[in-house]
Order: sequence, then C-alpha cells, then structure tokens
Amino acid sequence: MKRVLVIGAAGFIGRAVCTELQGRHDVVGLDITPRPADLCGLDWVSGSITDQPLVASTASGCDAAIFLASTSLPGSSQADLAGEVSSHVVGSLQVAETCAANGVGQFVFASSGGTVYGTDAPEEGLPETAPTRPRNGYGVSKLALEHYLRLMRETGRMRTLSLRISNPYGEGQRALRGQGLIAAAMQHALSGRRLPIWGDGTVERDFLHVSDVARAFAAALSHDGPSTEINIGSGQAVSINDILAAVRRVTGQPLDVDYVQGRAIDVRRSVLNVACAERELGWRAQIALDRGLERTARWWQQGTAQHAGIGQIARKGRAEIAKSG
Amino acid sequence: MKRVLVIGAAGFIGRAVCTELQGRHDVVGLDITPRPADLCGLDWVSGSITDQPLVASTASGCDAAIFLASTSLPGSSQADLAGEVSSHVVGSLQVAETCAANGVGQFVFASSGGTVYGTDAPEEGLPETAPTRPRNGYGVSKLALEHYLRLMRETGRMRTLSLRISNPYGEGQRALRGQGLIAAAMQHALSGRRLPIWGDGTVERDFLHVSDVARAFAAALSHDGPSTEINIGSGQAVSINDILAAVRRVTGQPLDVDYVQGRAIDVRRSVLNVACAERELGWRAQIALDRGLERTARWWQQGTAQHAGIGQIARKGRAEIAKSG
Repeated sequence: MKRVLVIGAAGFIGRAVCTELQGRHDVVGLDITPRPADLCGLDWVSGSITDQPLVASTASGCDAAIFLASTSLPGSSQADLAGEVSSHVVGSLQVAETCAANGVGQFVFASSGGTVYGTDAPEEGLPETAPTRPRNGYGVSKLALEHYLRLMRETGRMRTLSLRISNPYGEGQRALRGQGLIAAAMQHALSGRRLPIWGDGTVERDFLHVSDVARAFAAALSHDGPSTEINIGSGQAVSINDILAAVRRVTGQPLDVDYVQGRAIDVRRSVLNVACAERELGWRAQIALDRGLERTARWWQQGTAQHAGIGQIARKGRAEIAKSG
Repeated sequence: MKRVLVIGAAGFIGRAVCTELQGRHDVVGLDITPRPADLCGLDWVSGSITDQPLVASTASGCDAAIFLASTSLPGSSQADLAGEVSSHVVGSLQVAETCAANGVGQFVFASSGGTVYGTDAPEEGLPETAPTRPRNGYGVSKLALEHYLRLMRETGRMRTLSLRISNPYGEGQRALRGQGLIAAAMQHALSGRRLPIWGDGTVERDFLHVSDVARAFAAALSHDGPSTEINIGSGQAVSINDILAAVRRVTGQPLDVDYVQGRAIDVRRSVLNVACAERELGWRAQIALDRGLERTARWWQQGTAQHAGIGQIARKGRAEIAKSG
C-alpha cells in the first residue's frame, strides 16, 4: 500500500482513478473543486495546483503522484502559444518539481496518445518510438512535458512515467469544448439535437473506456520497466461513423449529424500499438467498445439534472485554474 | 533587399550574421548590449527581448526576423526546469508571436543540432527525421520551440524555419560556462592553463565555422522549401582529441588537458547529415576545420585585453536578460 496523491482528482479520469485505487492504496485527492459525493471516503484537499505551498504540503508524505490536471484543451491552444506554455507546461512542471523536492518518489503523468504523434498510424498501430510531430499546441505541450519529466528521471530527481492515453470515454465524461466525441454524441442523441462532425466521419481513432484508463494508472504505480512513455489504448481503430452507429444502437435514438469541412490538422488514422503496456505493465484494455458504450448510455439516461451539476462544477473549476494560472 | 531584424545581434553568431547581411539587406540589430564597434553602420536598438512593446515597435516594418537570443545555456538547465521553460520557451515564443502580430513575414530560429537529437549518429550523419530525445533541458526547450514555431507556420501566422546548428566556433567566441570547446581550448593554450575535458576525448562532434553559420542564415532568408527544420553542420565528425591536437598545432602551444569522468548525458557521436541544407538552401560549409582554426587562433593571438572587454559586455548582457526574464 502506497500513499498516492491524485492531482486533478475531481475530473473525469481523476474520479475513475480514485475509485480504482481506493482500498488498495491510501489516496489523497487534490482539485480546485470540492470533493465529489462519490469520493466521500477519500482524503481531499481543495485548492489550485498553482498554489505551490499547498502542493508541497499535500505532496509531503506521499509515495507517488498521479498528474491528471490540465489547464489546456486540444482546441484552445493555437492563438496564444506563449500563454499555453506559460499556464500548461510551466504550471505542470512546477507541480512535478515541487513533488520531487518534497520526497515523492514516483510521478505518473497523463499524456496524450491522440496528439503527441501527429502522424497516421500504420496497420499495427503507432509504437512509442514513432516520430512525434504534434499538430496542435496542446500536443506540443504534452510532448514537451514528457521530455522534461524524462530528464527528471534520468537525472535521478524522481521516477517519472508518461502514459500516452488514447481517446478516453465513459460514464462521467461531459461534452466540453470539442473534447469527447462519444460524450457529445450521447448528449446530442438523447436531446434530439443534430451533431456537427468535422470531415466525413471516416477518420479512425482509438477509444478507451475510462475504467481501463484507471486500471492503467493503478498498474503504473508498480511499474519497474525501462520505458519512460507507454501507450495506453484499445489498440483498435474505429471510425467516427462506426461510433455514431453504435451510439444510435445503444441509445435507441436516431442522432442526425451535419458533416462540416474537415480541419486540415486532423490525422486520418490514429491508433496506438499497446505491446509495451502489455509487456511492462501487464495491462491491456478489457472493456469492449459495445459494452463500454452501453454502460455510458445508461449513465446518460439516468438523468440530465445530476449531470448538469457535475458539468457546472467541472467548468467552474477549470475557469478558476485558468484564471489563477 | 529585405528589412531584417536580428535579435541577439551582439552575440557571437549575431555579429557574424549582421556582418554577412550588411549591404545585401537593410539590417536592424536588437540586443541588451550597446552596438559593438564593428557593427557601427547598422540600425540598432538596445533593450531586453522581454520588453514586448520595444520588440513590437522594432519588428514593425521588418520583413524577416532572425532569432539568436537565448536566456539559457546547455549546462544550466537541469536543476530548475520550470524556470528554464518560463524564461527560455515562453520568452522566445512571446517574441515570435509579437513579430507575427506586427507583420513580420518570416522568422528564422537558431535551434541546436547538437542537443535536439540526443542520440548517436549513424555513419551518414543524423537526418532531420531522426528521433528527437534531448538529454538536457536546453535541448528540450529548443525542440519545443521548433514545434511551436512549426505550428505557427502550419496555421499561417508566419513563415518559420528552424536551423539546427551544430557546434559553432570561430573568431569572436568567448569560452563561457562550458559552451565552446574550441574557444576554451584556445584560451587555455594561450594562457598556459590545463584544460579539463569530460570523458576520454574520443566523443565525436560536428564543428562549424561561424562564417558558415552566418551564410546559412542569409540563405534561409530566401528559403522556399517544404522543410520546417534544417540541419546546419559541417557533416564531418571530429573527435575532441583531434580538435585538441589541431589547436596545439595552430597555436604552437602544448595545451595540457585533464580527462575527468564523463557526463552520462553525453552522446558518443553527434554529426549532422546536411543533404537537406544543400537541397533547400543551396548551402554547404566552405571553411575547412584547419583553416577555420587558424583564423580563430590569429584572432585569439591579437590580444586578450580587447577580448576580455567583449567578454565582459556579453556576460553583463546575459545576466541582465536573465534577471529581467
């Protein structure tokens, strides 16, 4: 049993990670928002990750930290790159360096398998050694953070590991500013609104259920292998149109879409090769897409009032982080 | 003829670039230090690159900018990575974005061929497509800046180009904080002091005379090719011990060295493949190493009083940039 600090614990992935770790580890959650009701058994610290004294005192005594906070979203980072670096890269590195300085031995970073490569995947999926040429500022920032964290490990400051997560989906994910195709599709299907889709829906992506993501972070806490970046994905390429068809099936709703002109920055086929995760973490995805979508649809169908509440809290928290950064 | 802003114009490479461009372009130099005596014919603005209104007014009306300023050195960036990013990456990006916002059409960035790859070179040298895994914070920052600048070009904000320069040497280079092996060897040879050398002197590097570097920046101003990063090197691998022998020969001094335990972060063989520079810039190195070392030795032998003055100015300027950043 380790004492594990989960940074960004109230977010979509954060809540799943906390739930996965509870009982097996001594977990403390840190987030700008109050403790969510479903994590009532957890130690919790409410505050900004830019509050370094707070991060220091919270990290002190922890064996490991899982970093899931982000002040940046994929679509919002092209217009002000210096601002993107200042809030996203500098802010995240300050947290990592504060953790190292306060005796945290291990730091697991949520990187982005969907953006750091920026290149079309071969048949067998993108291996960790594929070229990295991100197509947006978000991806460059994630990649830069991976490199800086690798240096911290290579210079013996702290054992670091970056998990390059594909496209997570599942219960608890809200449709926020262009992130989360499946959440957006569920929301539009159930509210009877038309969904705008970039391109013709034939681009392929790698979707991973959030409980599989959470299991990967749990496995990372025992990682002892040589890799500093590990792909975490389903390894399966699925087209946007296939996702839409599956959402129609599991929700029983028609879900009309408007195809709008594709963004030039989109890659055609993004799917991860996950051989390294199997080898070094003993991890592979367990939730098949159909089953995961059924669970997600049930969550959406349980009622929108409750979800709107979670969404408001998450949005408010993000806005506050952005301001204080 | 273009109006060209040279940022960091008083530095070692900056002075050579200004000299190369003078007469062919309308050049304005920007640096924290006063205008050096050898650049008296140039428009000059003294000030910090962190002074964005000054950068904006200086950039306004310029067709192109060459960015040679740095607030970071290879050896100084491991202990405080967040600070390194904050001063180096954010500061440089702010200058680039200010240039783009003020109508500068082209931005040529001095990147580091010696640090962005971080991997041993094959026989034919490292091509631009080689994996990039820098071994120090300086290299990660240069690489991150390359990526952000590439995005600025891909999104149509400004035509950007990164020149991955190998190890520059030549007249005007001072031996500052671990940079510039040849300058350090010249200084120690002529003062009769023993030179500490990391490792056993068998690691191989690619050395390029500063006048060849300057010609590459001049050629970059007419670049119209597809590449966003181009290697600028001699393409020749030379061992440290071969350099030391050549310095002894051209200075006529014994130059004793102390071999000290090698830094684990050093790659064995770093040499650039320069086929892309030949193809897209019509550029290749012209100054053979022996001839370049003779010119450099003559410059050192002309007298240390004058050089010490230049060195003091450069050191003072860097300290001020670091403070204001």
